[in-house]
Amino acid sequence: MNYPSKLIEEAVSEVSKLPGIGKKTALRLVLHLLKKEEPHTRSLANALVAVRTQTRYCKKCHNIADSDLCGICASTRRDQSIVCVVEDTRDVLAIENTAQYNGLYHVLGGIIAPLEGIGPADLHIDTLIERLSGSERDEIKEIILALSPTMEGDTTAFYLQKKIKVFGLKVSTIARGIPIGGDLEYADEITLGRSIVGRVRYE
Amino acid sequence: MNYPSKLIEEAVSEVSKLPGIGKKTALRLVLHLLKKEEPHTRSLANALVAVRTQTRYCKKCHNIADSDLCGICASTRRDQSIVCVVEDTRDVLAIENTAQYNGLYHVLGGIIAPLEGIGPADLHIDTLIERLSGSERDEIKEIILALSPTMEGDTTAFYLQKKIKVFGLKVSTIARGIPIGGDLEYADEITLGRSIVGRVRYE
Repeated sequence: MNYPSKLIEEAVSEVSKLPGIGKKTALRLVLHLLKKEEPHTRSLANALVAVRTQTRYCKKCHNIADSDLCGICASTRRDQSIVCVVEDTRDVLAIENTAQYNGLYHVLGGIIAPLEGIGPADLHIDTLIERLSGSERDEIKEIILALSPTMEGDTTAFYLQKKIKVFGLKVSTIARGIPIGGDLEYADEITLGRSIVGRVRYE
Repeated sequence: MNYPSKLIEEAVSEVSKLPGIGKKTALRLVLHLLKKEEPHTRSLANALVAVRTQTRYCKKCHNIADSDLCGICASTRRDQSIVCVVEDTRDVLAIENTAQYNGLYHVLGGIIAPLEGIGPADLHIDTLIERLSGSERDEIKEIILALSPTMEGDTTAFYLQKKIKVFGLKVSTIARGIPIGGDLEYADEITLGRSIVGRVRYE
């Protein structure tokens, strides 16, 4: 595409590097900024730089935090005996939004994906082992593996479960099956098949 | 949603002000930036501020430009006798990409939308009239109204056509009808009806 100005071209090129944003959407966003007042763009730019340069990570669970410990790890109201292992911060937010969980978290910072060159050493697995063997040894009773039900998620869960086994803790994974409100007819065969194999007692 | 950090919350709030980007997408984009190197975010922020503060508009046609005149108005290869009136810069890009038009443009900067409080005075209509009555009076022979086939577009086209009539120029609008490759069966009744009323001689 021939852009009318070098500045537009550069801005479009930068914005379209974001995931899920192509050249056309990027152009729409840039032209939107041009129509708005200048402080609007400045505060957007400042917020992005601030979040990138000043964000800190919790020393304990690697969740995003404002100080050394995140709000969840610092809270005394949380159940210190359960640790939920998740891929990234978005998963923490998703689980927090359910209001069904009151334990701690451990954010891996990714999952094992050999095709993308991400191995166990690239994730925060060593610090999880440290938590289990070190300071929190006597408190933690259960580990929940809340990873995506994909090939990579399953591989990571399998790897973690093998590593954790030696501590003799209860290890669980989140339930898989037909989503609530889902129609059996439209469920894929693998999900439906597994939901039959993994059926639970009606209570 | 409870964000783990104030910085994240602010960045998400700023990003989600962009059109078509909700809180969830904004969070995904912000977390993406956190995963990337810092210069990545800085160059994005700088490009946005640069495009907002340094972009100039063509004195003649109001298209985005790097200098006083845009590349199209400054070119001697363009047909100076036709002016295509469009809503905004995106339309100029879209028409340029067709490689079917070699005339000049006039960017209105919007269309008449009474519901949004945009009247003729908010658009670059006065400068279009100036072009027709002033310096370019003897050159311009035809005006193409290339506005969206919506209520607002039609209103704007009607208003412009009335204003332009006094100059005795040829005024045309872009053809409307069934899109190329479109299936008659799936065309809406209004488009199909108009394409029959506005049928053209088979040559």
